[in-house]
Amino acid sequence: MEIEGRNVIGFDYSSGTGLIFQGVNPTLNSLIPEQFYIASQEDVDSALIKAKEAFIDFSKTSLEERALFLEAIAHEIEVLGDVLINKINEETGLSIERIKNERIRTIFQLHMFAEHVRSGNWLEATIDTELPNRKPTPKPDIRKMMFPLGPVVVFGASNFPLAYSVAGGDTASAFAAGCTVIVKAHPAHPGTSALVGHAICTAAKKSNMPNGVFSLLFDNGFVVGKALVEHSYTAAVGFTGSLGGGRALFDLAAKRTTPIPVFAEMGSTNPVVLLPEALKIRANDIAINYAASITLEVGQFCTNPGLLLAVGSKHLEQFKKHLIDVFKHVNPGIMLHKGIAEAFVQKSNSVLSGSEVNLLVESDNKSISGQGRPIIATVKGAEFIINPTLHQEVFGPFSLLVECESVDELYSCVKSLHGQLTGTLIGEPLDFEEHREIVDLLQQKVGRVIFNGVPTGVEVCPSMTHGGTYPATTDSRFTAVGVHSIKRFLRPVSFQNAPSNILPEALKDNNPLNLLRLINGKYSTLNIK
Amino acid sequence: MEIEGRNVIGFDYSSGTGLIFQGVNPTLNSLIPEQFYIASQEDVDSALIKAKEAFIDFSKTSLEERALFLEAIAHEIEVLGDVLINKINEETGLSIERIKNERIRTIFQLHMFAEHVRSGNWLEATIDTELPNRKPTPKPDIRKMMFPLGPVVVFGASNFPLAYSVAGGDTASAFAAGCTVIVKAHPAHPGTSALVGHAICTAAKKSNMPNGVFSLLFDNGFVVGKALVEHSYTAAVGFTGSLGGGRALFDLAAKRTTPIPVFAEMGSTNPVVLLPEALKIRANDIAINYAASITLEVGQFCTNPGLLLAVGSKHLEQFKKHLIDVFKHVNPGIMLHKGIAEAFVQKSNSVLSGSEVNLLVESDNKSISGQGRPIIATVKGAEFIINPTLHQEVFGPFSLLVECESVDELYSCVKSLHGQLTGTLIGEPLDFEEHREIVDLLQQKVGRVIFNGVPTGVEVCPSMTHGGTYPATTDSRFTAVGVHSIKRFLRPVSFQNAPSNILPEALKDNNPLNLLRLINGKYSTLNIK
Repeated sequence: MEIEGRNVIGFDYSSGTGLIFQGVNPTLNSLIPEQFYIASQEDVDSALIKAKEAFIDFSKTSLEERALFLEAIAHEIEVLGDVLINKINEETGLSIERIKNERIRTIFQLHMFAEHVRSGNWLEATIDTELPNRKPTPKPDIRKMMFPLGPVVVFGASNFPLAYSVAGGDTASAFAAGCTVIVKAHPAHPGTSALVGHAICTAAKKSNMPNGVFSLLFDNGFVVGKALVEHSYTAAVGFTGSLGGGRALFDLAAKRTTPIPVFAEMGSTNPVVLLPEALKIRANDIAINYAASITLEVGQFCTNPGLLLAVGSKHLEQFKKHLIDVFKHVNPGIMLHKGIAEAFVQKSNSVLSGSEVNLLVESDNKSISGQGRPIIATVKGAEFIINPTLHQEVFGPFSLLVECESVDELYSCVKSLHGQLTGTLIGEPLDFEEHREIVDLLQQKVGRVIFNGVPTGVEVCPSMTHGGTYPATTDSRFTAVGVHSIKRFLRPVSFQNAPSNILPEALKDNNPLNLLRLINGKYSTLNIK
Repeated sequence: MEIEGRNVIGFDYSSGTGLIFQGVNPTLNSLIPEQFYIASQEDVDSALIKAKEAFIDFSKTSLEERALFLEAIAHEIEVLGDVLINKINEETGLSIERIKNERIRTIFQLHMFAEHVRSGNWLEATIDTELPNRKPTPKPDIRKMMFPLGPVVVFGASNFPLAYSVAGGDTASAFAAGCTVIVKAHPAHPGTSALVGHAICTAAKKSNMPNGVFSLLFDNGFVVGKALVEHSYTAAVGFTGSLGGGRALFDLAAKRTTPIPVFAEMGSTNPVVLLPEALKIRANDIAINYAASITLEVGQFCTNPGLLLAVGSKHLEQFKKHLIDVFKHVNPGIMLHKGIAEAFVQKSNSVLSGSEVNLLVESDNKSISGQGRPIIATVKGAEFIINPTLHQEVFGPFSLLVECESVDELYSCVKSLHGQLTGTLIGEPLDFEEHREIVDLLQQKVGRVIFNGVPTGVEVCPSMTHGGTYPATTDSRFTAVGVHSIKRFLRPVSFQNAPSNILPEALKDNNPLNLLRLINGKYSTLNIK
C-alpha cells in the first residue's frame, strides 16, 4: 500500500509548504524513503475551517452513527494488517509483539468508545420538572445534558504510535464526544500516521461522516502545532509527551484571546515505595518484577517506575543485590528515535553526576548509538529531597533508588515529590498498618495508587485514572485513559422550558434513548409524567 | 453584634498590614464607621499553611460530618438575623426583600450541598473487578472515586453579597468537595463578609472542624488577591465578577510554576432573540416582561438581558412602542457601589456614542449620583456585527435592541456573538419550526437556552448550567450554580489491587455508603461478589 505523504485536509490533500521531511529507521539509523510534506498556515486554516463546518453536522449525528464510525475506524486499521505493523516497527524500533499488543489496545479503545457512545451515560442527562405553583416564583422546567466542545487538536505521542497517536485515545474520545479532530502527526512515525490517517478517512467516507471530521497535518518542527493551538476555531487540545512540550502548548492556549482547555499528559517518575516487611519477605521477587518493569520496551512508558524509595536495612541490601543480579543481564534496546536516545543519555548522566548519586547497576552489555542502556542509581534520602534534578523524569530504562535513614525521612521524601501519574506501594499487611499515612500522602499527588504491582501496564477501563497533579498533567480533574476521558471534551448546556419537539432525544419526556437520568434529584430510567 | 474588622486566619485574627479601609453606604454616599484591616503577605502565608494542614483532616471527614458542617453554617447565618440583613442593605443598597430572598437562596444552597454530600453520588465510585485468568495478562482490581483538590481561594462577588460571597455557592461547593477555603472578601461589603465569616468560624468550631478549614482576608486593592492566587498551596480558584478581573486571575494562575484551575464566571450580555410570530401575537406582554427583567435590582445580575435581537417589522415597531411606554416609568435605583455606578455611566455612554446607535428610551426620572438610570438603545444589525463595543457587557439597567433587516442578518448577528451564560428565544411554535437553526447557534455559545422566559432568575437545581463559553466563563466544562458545581474542585484517583482495609468506604466491597456505583460498566447498588 502506497503511503500518502501529503497533508490530509478533510477528504482532500495538500502539499503545504512544499518542504519535505523523511522518517528515520532508528534500528538502522537510516532515512526511510517516503517523503512527507510540511503543512502550511493555509493548511492549518483550511483544516480548522472544515473542522468547524463539519462540527455542526458531526455533533448532531446519532449515537449509533457515531458508534459505527468509531467501529469503522477500528475495522480500517485492522485492514491495514502487516503493512501497518511493519511500518511501525520500521519507524519506532518497537518489537512486533509490542506493536501487535498496541494494535489490540487501539482497536479495543475504539470499540470501547463506540459502546460508551451508545450507552449515552456520558450525556449525563439531568432533568428538573416544573413546579408552576411554587411561591414566590414558579419553578421552570430545566433539562441539562453534555455537548461537544468543538474542533479538538490532538498531538500524536512518540511512544504510542497507535494507542496515543492518530487514532488513539485522544482522537477516539474526542470523536465519541462529537468533536471533529485535527491531528498533528508525530514526526517520529509519519508513515504510521499517514496509514492510520488514511484508515480514518476511509472510515469517515464509508460512514457518511462530514468532510472535515478529521484532518492530519505533518511537521517536523513546532510551527504547525503552534498555529493549530492558536487558531481561533480550535476548542481544545489533547497532548501526550514531554513536560516541556506540554507546558509550551498549555501556555500558548492560556494566552489566547479566548483561552481553551489543554489536557497534556506529561512526565512522571512514578515513585515506588518499598516497605520494610515486604523487603524482608520477598526482596528477590520484587527485584525480578522491577528489573522487568523498569526496562520494559526500553523503559519508554510514561508509567515507567523511575523512582524507588525505601528505608535502609539489611533486607534493602539484599534487594539491591538481587536487583544487581537480575538487572545486569538486561540487554539495551533501541529507543524510539534519536532525540529520545540522546535525551536519555544526557538526563541519566545529569542525575549520575549529582553529588552523592552512585551507580548501582547497569546492563553488562554496552549500548550502541540509539540504544538505551539500562541503569539504576542510588542516592540518600536527604540529598534527594534537596536536589531538584533528581525529581525530573529520565525517559527510558532508568531508575533511582532513594535510600532513607528512617521512616520519617521516607515520609519527607514522599512529601517532596511532584505530582505523578502513579504511586506504588510494595508492602505486607503489617506495612500498611504501620504506614497508613504514606497511602494518604501518595493519594494527594497521584492519579493511581498501586498496591504490590508495577505501574507499567495501564488497564483501559472505566475505573482507570491516567492523570494526576501537575506536572503529571495540566489538569488533574481528568483522565486520559478509559471512557471517562471523554469528559475532557464535553460541556453542559441547559434548556429551560423548551418545547418538547426542540429538546434533544436524551432529554425528551419519553426517554427514547432509555437512559439512566437524574430526575428531580433521583436516578431513574422512567419517563417524565 | 460587634463587627470584627481583622482578618480571619483559621480560628485566629490578624491586623495584617495595619492599614485600614472602610465600607461605603452607596445610598447615602457616606463612609461606614467600622474599620477593616488590609491583610499582609504573612496573613496570606498563614492562611494557606493552615488551609493546607487542615485539608488533610477536613478531606477525611465523613460525609455526615461534612454535611453537618454545611448545615451548621446555614444555621449560624440564620442566627445573625436582622443584623446581617441591615448590614447588607447598608453596604449594598439592595432592597430588604431582595436581601431576604438571597438569604433564603444562600441557606438553601448550603442545605442542598449538605444533602448532595450525603448522597455520595458526586464521588462517582467506579469499580472494575479483577480477572486473574485473563490472557495475555491478568486484569487487576481497579477502583476509582473523586477526591478534593486542596485549598480553594474564593473571591466574593459584589452583586451577590450572600449567595456568591463568603458562604456562597463557591465556598459551599468547595467545602462539600472536602476542600478548605480562603475567601478574599469583596471590599464593597466588608461588614457583611465579616459577619458571615464569623458565622462560618462558629459553625466550624461547633462542628469540630480543623483550625484552618476557613480563612477570610480583607483588601480594598488587588495585592492580596494576587498573592492568594500565586501561593503554591492554592489548588483552585473560584471567582464571580468582571471579565477584566476574572481574566487577570486566570492569567496569574496559568503563569504559575504549577498552574491551577480558575473557574471565573464573568460578563455576559445574555442575548434575547424575539421571533416574528411571538412579536405579532404578544408584543405588549414581552415588553412588560423585559422592561422588568432589564431593570430588576438595577440590572445588576450577570444574567441581565443586555441584548435584544429581532427582525424589523410593524410588530417590532409595536413592541418598541410598548417598551417605551413601560420603561420610561421605571425609576432609577441605587447601584451596588460607586465603581459600578461610574462604570455603568461610562459603558452605556460608550455604546450610545457609537455611530448609528440611538437612544430608544430612558427612565423619565433623572438619576442622582450612585444610581443607574435605565436605558434602552437601538442599532441596526449590520452595525452591531462590526462594532465590538456593542458586544461588551454594560453591567446595570441597560439593553441594546438590535434591529435586523432580514432573517439572514439575524442569524449573522447571533453567529457574531461571544460566549454567553444564557441565550433566550421568544417564539411561537411556528417560529421554532421556521428558525430551528437559531436554537443550534445559541446552544453552541451558551450555558443555558431559555424559551419564552427571562434569563434573570437562576434556579438552583441539578439541571442548571450557570456557565458558558468564554468570556462568559474561563472553562465552559463546569457550572457555577447547582450541585454539579462541586465538580470544579474534584479529581479522580484510582486504587489498583488495594487491600480492602485501605480502600475508602465508597469503594469497599460491601458498599457501606449504599452508593449507586459503576461496576464493570453497569450501574448498581449491589455489593461486590
